[in-house]
Amino acid sequence: MERLPEPQTLADGKFIRLVRRGKWEYASRKGISGIVAIVAVTDDGKLVLVEQDRAPVGGRVIELPAGLAGDDKAHHGEELASAARRELLEETGYEAARFERVAEGPPSAGMTDEIITFFVARGLRKAGEAKGDGSEDIAVHEVPLGEIDRWLADRKQEGRRIDLKVYAGLYFARRS
Amino acid sequence: MERLPEPQTLADGKFIRLVRRGKWEYASRKGISGIVAIVAVTDDGKLVLVEQDRAPVGGRVIELPAGLAGDDKAHHGEELASAARRELLEETGYEAARFERVAEGPPSAGMTDEIITFFVARGLRKAGEAKGDGSEDIAVHEVPLGEIDRWLADRKQEGRRIDLKVYAGLYFARRS
Repeated sequence: MERLPEPQTLADGKFIRLVRRGKWEYASRKGISGIVAIVAVTDDGKLVLVEQDRAPVGGRVIELPAGLAGDDKAHHGEELASAARRELLEETGYEAARFERVAEGPPSAGMTDEIITFFVARGLRKAGEAKGDGSEDIAVHEVPLGEIDRWLADRKQEGRRIDLKVYAGLYFARRS
Repeated sequence: MERLPEPQTLADGKFIRLVRRGKWEYASRKGISGIVAIVAVTDDGKLVLVEQDRAPVGGRVIELPAGLAGDDKAHHGEELASAARRELLEETGYEAARFERVAEGPPSAGMTDEIITFFVARGLRKAGEAKGDGSEDIAVHEVPLGEIDRWLADRKQEGRRIDLKVYAGLYFARRS
């Protein structure tokens, strides 16, 4: 691409930095080494989704299990596959026998420098309590792939938002 | 969701604002009424993609045709379907007989308040010059759906990034 000037920090929040680079502005997360999203499909063909409050969009969002790699000292320098394993277990209570790295790319390349790595997880086994069990913010859903368009439409009807990465996940779930 | 305090602007760029809301921080685009992405499939089964420089990720990105609605005076209050029609023509030179709204959601709900609306465009007809024709920054690609996984892998090999919304678009292209 054309040669760009160095990035210049316009403002420095606790978690996010506002950056200018040439004529562009964008947001950048601080202190992470990557972001992972997990397309977890059970042996009986259900996609594992999470639902949580998302202040930026002011409501509850249906999403793939996902999270930041290397975002605290305990996870510093963490490999992406390890982060995927950890996030899947923490958010959903599932372990997986196999993680296949299927894609990586920006979710919104005009707005942020985020790059998210997708893993398809197979051979799932319930191994612990999900954050969604109990009073926590995260709810876990297991949705048969054959019924998912209808299920997502029903959730939307109830006022939930559907993260666009869910549809990308469906592409990989059906392809692989 | 839980009750949130009002958003508070931490920093105000030309195009993007850094916002704090409770314990959250996120980036917000200024002065737009929506964002559209277009899954344009030709009658002979090719997906129309664009490729352009994206400073936030420091390189060239393969994406769905997309753009902002209502981002200047000429487009103020623009309907999303009109924005989809305009962006498709401007970026690729294609007009479409039918636009079907298939989804809307956040690309990165923990990071920005962006909500992107997806349209599937069918009945394509080449109606003008794409920005990609000539010396402009945008290149247009028409890729047979049956060969697209291989094509994307080849582009990645060359150092291009693949916007994750391309995979979401493929889900809708194959479903509808």
